[in-house]
Amino acid sequence: MQIALLGGTGDIGEGLALRFAYDTDHDVIVGSREESRAKSKAREYETELDSRGLDVDVQGLDNAAAAATADVVVLAVPAYHLSDTVEAIDAEIDSETVLVTPAVGMQRDEDGFHYNRPGAGSVTELAADAAPDDVPVVGAFHNLPAARLANLDADLGIDTAVVGDDSDAVDTVTRLTEEVEGLRAVDAGPLANAAEIEAITPLLINVAKNNDGMHDLGVRFR
Amino acid sequence: MQIALLGGTGDIGEGLALRFAYDTDHDVIVGSREESRAKSKAREYETELDSRGLDVDVQGLDNAAAAATADVVVLAVPAYHLSDTVEAIDAEIDSETVLVTPAVGMQRDEDGFHYNRPGAGSVTELAADAAPDDVPVVGAFHNLPAARLANLDADLGIDTAVVGDDSDAVDTVTRLTEEVEGLRAVDAGPLANAAEIEAITPLLINVAKNNDGMHDLGVRFR
Repeated sequence: MQIALLGGTGDIGEGLALRFAYDTDHDVIVGSREESRAKSKAREYETELDSRGLDVDVQGLDNAAAAATADVVVLAVPAYHLSDTVEAIDAEIDSETVLVTPAVGMQRDEDGFHYNRPGAGSVTELAADAAPDDVPVVGAFHNLPAARLANLDADLGIDTAVVGDDSDAVDTVTRLTEEVEGLRAVDAGPLANAAEIEAITPLLINVAKNNDGMHDLGVRFR
Repeated sequence: MQIALLGGTGDIGEGLALRFAYDTDHDVIVGSREESRAKSKAREYETELDSRGLDVDVQGLDNAAAAATADVVVLAVPAYHLSDTVEAIDAEIDSETVLVTPAVGMQRDEDGFHYNRPGAGSVTELAADAAPDDVPVVGAFHNLPAARLANLDADLGIDTAVVGDDSDAVDTVTRLTEEVEGLRAVDAGPLANAAEIEAITPLLINVAKNNDGMHDLGVRFR
């Protein structure tokens, strides 16, 4: 498969790009609003992979071009860029594209980080609302520690809860997830169940902040 | 210490009562609105513990009497009974009592279980609002699988996120938690950070419902 990581120059995009390239046989495409940034980051990822003896091509394209050629498009952008990003690619995706949204809305105050639940119910459903009606949307990768993903020496041993209303699309994302060493996909049901997944991300930050020796946390259901 | 489990005849109360009695040297008191039910359940727990070679006394008292003698009072009641329960005991608790709230508000629809966030911000903060001002309140034990706790043969290997504004009270609950084999307490900051912890509980039910072989789930931050 071809996997496009839009916003693939950011933290979570970088982590997913490196893990997909390192652990799977799929083609990884880095997307960005600026093609030059995408290409530059793609070179960086190739260098990192090459240092580990893996000679793979990572493409860098603008978001629309990246989405156009991809089977799976991951919207690895901040929540406030979700709608813009979907708008920029909506002519390039169709019912054969699986659109994956890992974004979470958070706000911070003096107590810590909090989930900022949007009116749509969740950021995942916000992405689904923005997407063309025939494009299947899957929520996944919400609670992954970006820096730990990007460090290919770091063990994962963590889960990602997957939600979606299209079971084929959920299966595709589940299989892709489980090709990454140490990452397990668990099915959390339809898109309507996304809010409780997204809410874990601020909690992970609060726990990391308040406990010595805990950082870059993920979650395991057990 | 004396630990009172109000609503200690219910699922989570039973699990905590058995684990505290089995793994720690503290005295466990089962509280209920009806003293006779509390006494009957306390006998049941003693029998279970005795079958494992542990000869301990478990007291059964009505909620107010249970709270009156306890150092730590756990409100192991459904969210909709929280305020009633606190009202029934408020003359019996003071600044020397640590009040612990594990309750979560949930609603269910055709998609799954969802977190039902109260106006107070969280059920934990609802309990804090209901408690007398001088009583320190700690949120803990929200995401624990009741049936697995109550089965003393079951391994835990899970976490509970603890929140509170009184650091001594948080320390007391943290130490108590970590005396239970396989249970780890992580500090999630002030009470204001409780909502994101409570939201995990409906997610754990959704994950258990949607994945073969997963049931009675807890969570581990790692």
